[in-house]
Amino acid sequence: MAILDKINQMNDIKDLNSQELNLLAEEIRQFLVEHISVTGGHLASNLGAVELTMALHLICNFPKDKLIWDVGHQSYTHKILTGRKNAFDTLRQFGGLSGFPKRSESACDSFNTGHSSTSISAGLGFAEAREILGEDYKVISVIGDGAFTGGMAYEALNNASRLKTNFIIVLNDNKMSISENVGGFSTHLAALRTAEAYQDFKSGVHSSLNKLPYGDRVIRRIQKTKSSLKQLLIPGMMFENLGVTYLGPVDGHNIEDMLRIMREAVKVNGAVVVHVLTEKGKGYTPAERYPAKFHGTAAFDIESGQLKKVKEKADYTDVFSSVMKKIGDQDPSVVAVTAAMADGTGLKRFRNAFPDRFFDVGIAEGHAVTFSAGLAAQGLKPVFAVYSSFLQRGFDQIVHDVCMQKLPVTFAIDRAGLVGADGETHQGIFDLSYLSMMPGMTVMAPKNKWELAAMLRWAVNFEGPVALRYSRGQAYEGLKNYHQKIALGKSEKIYDESQIALFAVGNMMETAVKVHDLLKERGYDCTLVNARFVKPLDTEMLFETAREHLMIATLEDNVIKGGYGESVMAALQQAGIQTKVEMFGIRDCFVEQGSVEQLRRAIGLDAESVTEQIIRGFDQI
Amino acid sequence: MAILDKINQMNDIKDLNSQELNLLAEEIRQFLVEHISVTGGHLASNLGAVELTMALHLICNFPKDKLIWDVGHQSYTHKILTGRKNAFDTLRQFGGLSGFPKRSESACDSFNTGHSSTSISAGLGFAEAREILGEDYKVISVIGDGAFTGGMAYEALNNASRLKTNFIIVLNDNKMSISENVGGFSTHLAALRTAEAYQDFKSGVHSSLNKLPYGDRVIRRIQKTKSSLKQLLIPGMMFENLGVTYLGPVDGHNIEDMLRIMREAVKVNGAVVVHVLTEKGKGYTPAERYPAKFHGTAAFDIESGQLKKVKEKADYTDVFSSVMKKIGDQDPSVVAVTAAMADGTGLKRFRNAFPDRFFDVGIAEGHAVTFSAGLAAQGLKPVFAVYSSFLQRGFDQIVHDVCMQKLPVTFAIDRAGLVGADGETHQGIFDLSYLSMMPGMTVMAPKNKWELAAMLRWAVNFEGPVALRYSRGQAYEGLKNYHQKIALGKSEKIYDESQIALFAVGNMMETAVKVHDLLKERGYDCTLVNARFVKPLDTEMLFETAREHLMIATLEDNVIKGGYGESVMAALQQAGIQTKVEMFGIRDCFVEQGSVEQLRRAIGLDAESVTEQIIRGFDQI
Repeated sequence: MAILDKINQMNDIKDLNSQELNLLAEEIRQFLVEHISVTGGHLASNLGAVELTMALHLICNFPKDKLIWDVGHQSYTHKILTGRKNAFDTLRQFGGLSGFPKRSESACDSFNTGHSSTSISAGLGFAEAREILGEDYKVISVIGDGAFTGGMAYEALNNASRLKTNFIIVLNDNKMSISENVGGFSTHLAALRTAEAYQDFKSGVHSSLNKLPYGDRVIRRIQKTKSSLKQLLIPGMMFENLGVTYLGPVDGHNIEDMLRIMREAVKVNGAVVVHVLTEKGKGYTPAERYPAKFHGTAAFDIESGQLKKVKEKADYTDVFSSVMKKIGDQDPSVVAVTAAMADGTGLKRFRNAFPDRFFDVGIAEGHAVTFSAGLAAQGLKPVFAVYSSFLQRGFDQIVHDVCMQKLPVTFAIDRAGLVGADGETHQGIFDLSYLSMMPGMTVMAPKNKWELAAMLRWAVNFEGPVALRYSRGQAYEGLKNYHQKIALGKSEKIYDESQIALFAVGNMMETAVKVHDLLKERGYDCTLVNARFVKPLDTEMLFETAREHLMIATLEDNVIKGGYGESVMAALQQAGIQTKVEMFGIRDCFVEQGSVEQLRRAIGLDAESVTEQIIRGFDQI
Repeated sequence: MAILDKINQMNDIKDLNSQELNLLAEEIRQFLVEHISVTGGHLASNLGAVELTMALHLICNFPKDKLIWDVGHQSYTHKILTGRKNAFDTLRQFGGLSGFPKRSESACDSFNTGHSSTSISAGLGFAEAREILGEDYKVISVIGDGAFTGGMAYEALNNASRLKTNFIIVLNDNKMSISENVGGFSTHLAALRTAEAYQDFKSGVHSSLNKLPYGDRVIRRIQKTKSSLKQLLIPGMMFENLGVTYLGPVDGHNIEDMLRIMREAVKVNGAVVVHVLTEKGKGYTPAERYPAKFHGTAAFDIESGQLKKVKEKADYTDVFSSVMKKIGDQDPSVVAVTAAMADGTGLKRFRNAFPDRFFDVGIAEGHAVTFSAGLAAQGLKPVFAVYSSFLQRGFDQIVHDVCMQKLPVTFAIDRAGLVGADGETHQGIFDLSYLSMMPGMTVMAPKNKWELAAMLRWAVNFEGPVALRYSRGQAYEGLKNYHQKIALGKSEKIYDESQIALFAVGNMMETAVKVHDLLKERGYDCTLVNARFVKPLDTEMLFETAREHLMIATLEDNVIKGGYGESVMAALQQAGIQTKVEMFGIRDCFVEQGSVEQLRRAIGLDAESVTEQIIRGFDQI
C-alpha cells in the first residue's frame, strides 16, 4: 500500500495530492476489509466514512481541532490516519485497540463514545468552553442519520442555536433520509449558502422575483406567511427551525466536493449542519449488498463474504426470537417494541409475522419505555427488547411511567453482563442494580435456554413490570433436567448439599456449576441455588439455606453495589441470620474490552478464581 | 358560583350554552384563585388552561376518550370538571387530592404524569393500542412549549408519523414561541387546513398563483426546490417535517375558536399538532404579571398577591445560590448549567452575575449532562444544578459520558429526599442508589447549611465527578460548631459515645440529633456520625466504630435498596465485622404527597419511630 505506508501520524494526509488521496481511500478500504475480516468489527459504517474522514482530516489540524464521533463505531479511518494503523491486529481485543474513540488512546480522540446521539451535546460543550477560555480551534461532531432519531440530538440542536461561534455538525447520512428536503436544488443551494454568500443570495432571489411582472405581489404574498424567504428556498428546514444553519447535501465519497462544502462550513458563525450522503459498505460488494449484516461482523472470508465460523448453537437472542414468535401466535395482545434493534434483539421474526403488533421507534429508548407504558395502560402486553446498556437511557421512564403505575411491561434485556469486544460502553453490568431499586419491579434471569423461554412466557402474563435479563452469545444448554415451574419470587435449588451455599444469577449459572464441581474436587460440599428472581428475593429459601450452611456465596455479572449480593446480605442481616456472606460480582469499575472469558478472569469472575476465593473465605470461618 | 354548581361530574359541561360557558370559565378562575390561595399549588399554568380544558371536555366523551396531560400540573380544571371540585380543600395534602393526574383518583385520568415530555409517547401508545384492539376513542395529549424542548417529545413525534389514525397533540403555548412560523396568515390557514379542505386548498393556491401573469414560472421555480408547496405556505414546518400535521395557532382563551379547530383536528388521520396560544396566569393580575412566581406557589393573599408566610430562614437553594455566586467571582473556570430551572435551583444569581458562563439548556437533562461533560473535557468546572428526580433523565449520560471519562462535573442535586406536596413523581429518593453504583462517582450530602457551602467549594475543585445532594426547604442550622475540614471519603464524628452508633446522611442529620437525644432520655448512649461521603465510604471510621459499638444504625432519606445502609453493611461483612446493622430508609415503595413531616412519620423515618426501632433492635442483642 504505497500511499498508506506514508501515513504514519496525524496530519500526514495533508502532504498528498489529489490523485494520491483517491488512491489512499482505496487503500484504506482494502486495509479495513483485510483487517476486519480477521479480527471482526464494524465494517460497513467504516467503509462508508472513508472519504468523509479524510476530508475532515484535510480540513482539521490535529490534535488542536476537536472531532467527536457519535457512537464512534465509524472511527476506524480516523484511527488509521492518527498513527494507530499498526495496532489494527489487536482491534477490539483484550488490551488492544478499541473499536470506539478513546481519549486514553490518542490526543486526536477528543471524547469517548459508544452510545448514540451524544456527539452534538458534547461538541456544544467543547465549543462553549472554547469561547469562555478564549481559545481557537474547530469543533466538529459527526453524527449518523440514525442517531438523529435520539432525542438528545434534538435537545442539543435546540440548545446549539444560542451559539454565536463556529460549531460544525456533520450529518453522515447513509442514504436513509431523515427529511424529504434533499435533492438537486439543494445541492445547487449548498454552493451558495455560505456565511458570505447567503445575504447576497437572498437579495438575489428578491431581485430575481422582482424582475418578473407582478413579482412584488408574489413576494408580498410569500412574506404574508410570516415565514422568511428562507422557508421557500431552503432545504433542511427542520434544522433551520431549530436555529441551525444547514448546508448540503454533498456526495460523501467525493473528497473535492466535501472539501469545498467544509471550507464554507468553517466560515459560518454558529452551529451548522453539513449534510453528507454516504453509502454503507462502500467499495466491498458483500457489505454494499448486506450493510446490516456487515454493520458489526465476526471474522469473514473476503472472497465470499461468508462468516468463517458458523454458529453451532443457538444464542439467547435466537431463543428469545423464536419464543416471541410463538407467544405472538398464541396471544394477540402481545406486542413488541424495539429501539432500532429489530435484528440485534431477535424481534425480526416477530415483526415479519405480526407487522401490526411490532414497533421500531428509532434510537429512542426513553420514548420506547413510555410508549410501552401507554400500550400497557390500554390492555396490551408489550415486550420491549433492548440491550442492557442502552436501556440505561430509559431509566427515568421505567421508574416514572412504568413502575409508578405498575404497568405490565416486559423488558427483555439482551447483552446483560459482559459483552466482550465492544468494551466498557456496552457492558450490561448495571441493570440488576438500577432495576432492583425501583419499587414494584420484578427482576429475573434465566439459567439456560429453556428457562429463558419459560420466563418469557411467565413475564408477559404477569400483572406488573418485569425485567428479564440474559447474556450475549451462546445460550447455556446445561442443567436441562432442572426445570421447576416458574413462580413469583421463587428460586430453584439445583444441588442440595452442605457447608457452602452458592446463589448464582442467570448468566453465571454455567460458572456456578463449574465452581460446584471444583469445590467437590477440593473436598468441599456446595449447595447450588439458581436465583431466578433477583427481585423479589426468595427469602424463604435463603433463610432456610443460610441456617443450614456455614457460608453463603452470591455470584452475578453485575456491579456489586446495589446488586443481588447486597440484597441477599441485607435480607440476612435484617432477619438476624449471621451466616457469612461472600459476594462475587464487579467491584466498582468499568470493564474494558476482551473476550468474556478473558474479562471474567481479569476481574476474578471465572470459576477458578471464585472457587479459590470461596475456599479462602470458608477456611477462615 | 351559579354555573360551577351545576358541574358535578364528567360531561356535565356539555349541557351549558355559550354564555354559560364563558361564565363557567370565570367561575373556575375564581375557584382556582380562592382555593390555591389557601392550599398553595400550581396557579399560573392552571389559570392559563381553563378554556383549553373546557374545549377539550366539550369535544371529548369521558371516560371513553383519553386525555394525557404532560407534566400534569395544569390539570386542575380537568379535575374540577370531573367530579373532584369538592376535594380541592385537600389539594396536595397528605391523603388528599393530587396536584397531578392519577389513575387511582378518576377514570378520567388516563395516565399518571409529573415529569416532562412524556405525554406524546404515552398518547401514541394509547392510539396504537386502540388500533390493535379495534376500539374507538379519541386520544389527546396536552403538552406545553417548554416540554417540547425535551428530547422525548421529538422521539415520540418522529415515531408518531407512522400512525395512520387519529392522535391529537395539543401544544399549549404560553406565548413562548418554539417556532417563528406563527402569525396572521397561519391563523387563516388553520381554518382551511383540515383533512377535507387541504387538497382543495392546495389546488386553490396553485390556481391563484396561476392567475398571476408568469405565475406558472413562479410555481415551476418553487417546485424546483423539490419541497412541496406545503413548504411555502405552511407554518409549523418542523412538525410537518417530522411527518405530523400542524393546525394553528388558535387563541386558547376563545372557546368557540378552539372548538372549531378541534372539530377539524378530530377529522385528521394520523398525528396532528394543534397549536394553542394561552397566557400563563390569565385572569388574575398578579399571576399575569409574575407568572414564574405563581407557577407553583404557597398560600397567598388574593388582594395583594403576597405570600402569607414569609420565609424566615434560608433554604438550601438560597445557600447554594449565594455560594455559587461567590465561587463564580473567585474562579472564572466555574460555569453553571440548568435544565430550565434557573429559578428553582437558585442559579439565577449566578446567571445575572456571569451570563456568559451560565447555560439554560431547556428541559433536557440528558443533554445537560453530556454538555457538561464536554465543558469539563476542555478544562472548565461545570456545576449542573438539578432536582434529584429530574436527574434520573440523565442516568445513562452520567454513567457513559461523565463517569467513564472521570470528568470533573459537579452535580448540585436539589430536592433530594422527600419533597412533600408534589408527591411520588418528585420525591428524590433514588439518587443515593443510582449514583453510588456508578464507578468513579463521589457522592456527598451536607449536614447543615455551612457544610453545603464547604462541600460545594470542595466539589468544584475535585478532579472527578461529584454528586452533592441536599433537601428542599429550610436549611438545617444546627451543629454549627461542628465543621471539620472536608476530605475525600472522610466522615465526621459528632458525638463520641458508646453502645449504639448512628451513621446519618445529610438531610437526616437533624433527625439523627433528635434520635441521639431521645436515646439519651431513654438511657442509651449513641455515637453520632455525619456520613458526609456516601461514596467512597469512610471504612476506617466505620470499622473502628463498629468494633467499639454493639450496634450500627444507618439513616438516609433514600430507598434502602442500593443506598448508604447497604454499602455500610456490605463493607462490614467483607471486613468480617459482625456488628449488628439496622438500616433506616425507604422500603421499596413510592412515597405519596404530604408534608415532609407527615411522610416521615408514615414511613417510619421520624425521630420517634427511628428511636423506638433502634431500641427494639438493641434490646434484642
